[in-house]
Amino acid sequence: MVLDRLKQIASQVTNTISPPHPLDPLSSLEIETATSLLRKEQGQLYYNAVTLLEPPKAQLLPWLSDPDHTEKPHRIADIVAITPEGKVMDGHVSLTEAKVLSWEHTPGVQPLITMEDLQIVEHVVRKDSKVIEQCRIIGIPAEDMHKVYCDPWTIGYDERFGNSVRLQQALMYYRPHPDNSQYTYPLDFCPIYDSNKQEIIHIDVPKIRRPVNQAPPNDYTVKSIQESIGYRTDIKPIDITQPEGVSFTVKGRTIEWQNWSVHVGFNYREGIVLNNITYFDKAENAVRPVFYRLSLAEMVVPYGNPERPHQRKHAFDLGEYGGGYMTNSLSLGCDCKGSIHYMDAEFVNRAGAAQVIKNAICIHEEDAGILFKHTDFRDDSVIVTRGRKLIISHIFTAANYEYCVYWIFHQDGAVQLEIKLTGILNTYAMNPGEDTKGWGTEVYPGVNAHNHQHLFCLRIDPNIDGPNNTIFQVDAAQGPGEVGSEENYYGNAFYAKKTKFTNPVEAMSDYDGSTSRTWEMCNENKLNPYSKKPVSYKLVSREVPALLPKKDSLVWKRAGFARHAVHVTKYSDGDFYPAGRHVPQTSGEPSRGLPEWIEANPTENIANTDVVLWHTFGITHFPSPEDYPVMPAEPMTLLLRPRNFFVRNPCLDVPPSYARTPAEVAAGKSGCGCGKDNVSKLV
Amino acid sequence: MVLDRLKQIASQVTNTISPPHPLDPLSSLEIETATSLLRKEQGQLYYNAVTLLEPPKAQLLPWLSDPDHTEKPHRIADIVAITPEGKVMDGHVSLTEAKVLSWEHTPGVQPLITMEDLQIVEHVVRKDSKVIEQCRIIGIPAEDMHKVYCDPWTIGYDERFGNSVRLQQALMYYRPHPDNSQYTYPLDFCPIYDSNKQEIIHIDVPKIRRPVNQAPPNDYTVKSIQESIGYRTDIKPIDITQPEGVSFTVKGRTIEWQNWSVHVGFNYREGIVLNNITYFDKAENAVRPVFYRLSLAEMVVPYGNPERPHQRKHAFDLGEYGGGYMTNSLSLGCDCKGSIHYMDAEFVNRAGAAQVIKNAICIHEEDAGILFKHTDFRDDSVIVTRGRKLIISHIFTAANYEYCVYWIFHQDGAVQLEIKLTGILNTYAMNPGEDTKGWGTEVYPGVNAHNHQHLFCLRIDPNIDGPNNTIFQVDAAQGPGEVGSEENYYGNAFYAKKTKFTNPVEAMSDYDGSTSRTWEMCNENKLNPYSKKPVSYKLVSREVPALLPKKDSLVWKRAGFARHAVHVTKYSDGDFYPAGRHVPQTSGEPSRGLPEWIEANPTENIANTDVVLWHTFGITHFPSPEDYPVMPAEPMTLLLRPRNFFVRNPCLDVPPSYARTPAEVAAGKSGCGCGKDNVSKLV
Repeated sequence: MVLDRLKQIASQVTNTISPPHPLDPLSSLEIETATSLLRKEQGQLYYNAVTLLEPPKAQLLPWLSDPDHTEKPHRIADIVAITPEGKVMDGHVSLTEAKVLSWEHTPGVQPLITMEDLQIVEHVVRKDSKVIEQCRIIGIPAEDMHKVYCDPWTIGYDERFGNSVRLQQALMYYRPHPDNSQYTYPLDFCPIYDSNKQEIIHIDVPKIRRPVNQAPPNDYTVKSIQESIGYRTDIKPIDITQPEGVSFTVKGRTIEWQNWSVHVGFNYREGIVLNNITYFDKAENAVRPVFYRLSLAEMVVPYGNPERPHQRKHAFDLGEYGGGYMTNSLSLGCDCKGSIHYMDAEFVNRAGAAQVIKNAICIHEEDAGILFKHTDFRDDSVIVTRGRKLIISHIFTAANYEYCVYWIFHQDGAVQLEIKLTGILNTYAMNPGEDTKGWGTEVYPGVNAHNHQHLFCLRIDPNIDGPNNTIFQVDAAQGPGEVGSEENYYGNAFYAKKTKFTNPVEAMSDYDGSTSRTWEMCNENKLNPYSKKPVSYKLVSREVPALLPKKDSLVWKRAGFARHAVHVTKYSDGDFYPAGRHVPQTSGEPSRGLPEWIEANPTENIANTDVVLWHTFGITHFPSPEDYPVMPAEPMTLLLRPRNFFVRNPCLDVPPSYARTPAEVAAGKSGCGCGKDNVSKLV
Repeated sequence: MVLDRLKQIASQVTNTISPPHPLDPLSSLEIETATSLLRKEQGQLYYNAVTLLEPPKAQLLPWLSDPDHTEKPHRIADIVAITPEGKVMDGHVSLTEAKVLSWEHTPGVQPLITMEDLQIVEHVVRKDSKVIEQCRIIGIPAEDMHKVYCDPWTIGYDERFGNSVRLQQALMYYRPHPDNSQYTYPLDFCPIYDSNKQEIIHIDVPKIRRPVNQAPPNDYTVKSIQESIGYRTDIKPIDITQPEGVSFTVKGRTIEWQNWSVHVGFNYREGIVLNNITYFDKAENAVRPVFYRLSLAEMVVPYGNPERPHQRKHAFDLGEYGGGYMTNSLSLGCDCKGSIHYMDAEFVNRAGAAQVIKNAICIHEEDAGILFKHTDFRDDSVIVTRGRKLIISHIFTAANYEYCVYWIFHQDGAVQLEIKLTGILNTYAMNPGEDTKGWGTEVYPGVNAHNHQHLFCLRIDPNIDGPNNTIFQVDAAQGPGEVGSEENYYGNAFYAKKTKFTNPVEAMSDYDGSTSRTWEMCNENKLNPYSKKPVSYKLVSREVPALLPKKDSLVWKRAGFARHAVHVTKYSDGDFYPAGRHVPQTSGEPSRGLPEWIEANPTENIANTDVVLWHTFGITHFPSPEDYPVMPAEPMTLLLRPRNFFVRNPCLDVPPSYARTPAEVAAGKSGCGCGKDNVSKLV
């Protein structure tokens, strides 16, 4: 751990002196340079975001391929701020030239809700007389207002209030004791909070009142477990150690590991952003580009209870709060094992100062079980090779829920995205005997957890041996010819049916589990020398529910990206956010982001050009009592797998744990490799 | 390791003295007792299988619930043998009473092909003059016949030969050197082998001939890697150790771990069989039954090339060869890390003697990452708890392919089945420039790997708080009412639509990815006290391709179980094999196993009674060069998750890695737990 820490400090020092990679997030120094420049010109501002404006691809690609002989793109800060009068401002500040490049008022939008915006609300609701009155009605006396809590959410969109005023809705809770889980005591009313005035402007009160829950606490604190069921005492330790350190190298924010190279970016919104992902292919003796950029670009969590005001519960956790802003400092909870390399995250605060989340990103390796194995049944000659994976992860807390995001690199050329959902269900009050009507589940007496979906939008900017790529939909299909016909006598013919997407409208495609549908990102200009098929990476994703809110519904309009499993657009600098740049309080008329871009140019060519694939995946969650009071992590995963990209299995050169050939068996010779690890004896 | 070995020896000794559990596989002693009894009565026999006849459930359930006061069911051997005249005999021998209970000729069937049956073929083909002639034609001189190899497969079904003669088809290969991968040198003809006569009775020769491949070898041996690309030298060791040993206990073949109890059976056919799976629920202070029996009961691997004789490639790897018989001895290749408990497998050989596969089953624990986590955004109070899993696994080699089967138990009550596919693609010859016609991929010059599916049939005998269970299909569905209607004004209503299966015909159901379809195994007689929903386990399986061979095709007829993702039948003793008891050379007319049982009683009640759920899942594989010459493991997984089974998260009592409450944060107190492991400091 000390060595890791020293390494980390050293890398930070290096970062400070040497000029940063054009895709490095803004440093604290850069953030404060930007805000001080603006302060001089614009006076006081409430900062919402100060983040890297990623350089145009046309500028960056030449630099990436030859950094020593190419002018480095300028460092530019992309800024969102609110004036003291409540005007939303968007602007760019050049850090290289130390000047404000643009500064404009954007009317009719609301930028995301920051953690600071959220933190204030609870203090306001506790003092608001209308809230105090509502609390009294359901059984909380005024002197207990310090026991009242709220999870402030963006308002989504409420047609009564539109988007000219910056609003939040306060989901209300009660805690008998500060350490009790508030989610057992949801309150039945919902105050609306004006972020600019910092006051409650309205309260949504249901027709049927629900007095505060009288059930005993349902807690997961150490004290509550010790005093009730007690802790398990039969778990013996598993020690995972890396006595020789990690197998990856870190240069700035570029990680090199097992032929992979990846630049690890991070921003307030998407959290981890992986750039310039390449694989060194020994067979070609070349560094081959795979992805220009990978990120979780957006998500939406629609809840399925149609009763007002629950329709407002459909958080866009990235676009409305920021997956980066909500990131956990992993120094506050030990989340990984082995030798960990951490990276911090630097953001602006409301006042314009930089602030740091320590250990925001975790980079570590894990054993990955069998990488490949084969035994010859004739003689038990065998090869067995263990795999290893590299995991770049962060965890963010969106009020009640936690999202653990793991970007996983494999030795066989696959990239995996795994997300674990944990944390706490959003809950609402219910009276004894009240019918959930199927919109939720009583997970504990008086606690109604509503049905919901978690729909994530993965933004894939492929760079499969270059930027000109084509997306194909691939379905497993029966061959032509009926049973008994000459061409298909035994009826067993089947093949991969490939549908080429030539424009964004064609490319709006849904998932089909029965055909094992996948999508291939191909470079049609380069064929695999053996298979004669284009080099490609395949998106293999199996957790792809349909968006359940109906066509033309509020969520359908606001979350255009979630209408289909896949959208494809022509690459355009700055098209990062599939539900739009400013998401809170959008009405969905028009639908921002993807629908807007596609409508603008529905027949634009997307074949053999620079394209972006947007993939919506996730789960539908019908809660049950075992998800409460804190949810066991529910995993979901998808893979990006090389197909026809390599001429052979690219990990044959990983030292085997054990290998013995037929000739060795015949000669009575022992095999090579070792019993415990795949490194020591062989090399 | 020494300690483990000693423990293992001790457990074996215990096993020998104390009477075995009624579900323990037959011991070597029992196997040889059965065959010696039969030898006395029947003379010489060629044994195909001598395995435990599992006791009738009505007999076993009382014993399981009160073994001390219930008569133990008799030990009975279930036997398949072939007489020297080639007659197939089925019989039962009571080991308890030392007598033959039944002994009958079963006409018109062929029992599975054993490893011994397979081993002989290669020696026969090398000496067969017709094979030598075919080899000569495609460029292999007679003096090189020792370089000719074959993977003998069951013939599937070939209408020219029917099922009265016991046949195999010999998929032919060539090795320039014994250590070269033969799959780079597939031969274009296919001899048919008579197992009883031990001779070649026919050769299928294609119209277009394909001389033996002239491409250089494509190998994965240590020598070939060292002499070409060289091994990676940058993988540092990850040491996984369990200094205090494992967290499970083994009593006979019953494993107890983290509230789970499971009996680990094993047979020649299904491999691992898990019986009497229970969970000790602290909240109820009771051992709760979950599953009576779990196993992989069958599988089929149809290939998609319609050209004769490739339609014959649709191996039923369990029913035609036996997943147990093909199991790897894990002492011949180190496949797991940490402290391992192994179990051996004991089988009969052809002559009637017992033989042992050492270390056939691996039982070990692994770290499972975050089990649950929540951070309060107000004050960074946090809990983070690491998970652990128990893995019971075996690996079997079906000629070219390997199947790694992992039964995984989780602390949150979930049971996971993970299968990794690795090994080598089945390959066929192709001429330079020949068109694969989309039925395969040229993965290396001259090597055509055909499209195929791996379809597994998971047999689930649920016992959710008792044997009387009901299966529901669950689909995520939009609520009624159009957008703008009073009942669904915002169009966001959605719910879990449950369809109850009351008879086996209704229960034949397919997968629907768009509704996130799952199936729930419920006990309608017991409601969760909070949610008022029946206690249940949910089958969550997302790799569920449709069977691609057409309706009424050969494979469709033979593999009736693969026509639907789910079948449900009423429990009946002995209904174990969904494609029938004797699978090789079945014509599919009639379809054996599931279709037969369902047709016999299509409207039988399956609600609130003892039922079996049969689930077919798998993958469709369109090969690519990176799968060759040995495939990086391709994982696939499914989950059995408790829903409304527990009253709360059942793993809250796993000691956290770190926990700090709001009151502790407010008081400036540190949290508890420790930085590295979830055991030491807390308890």
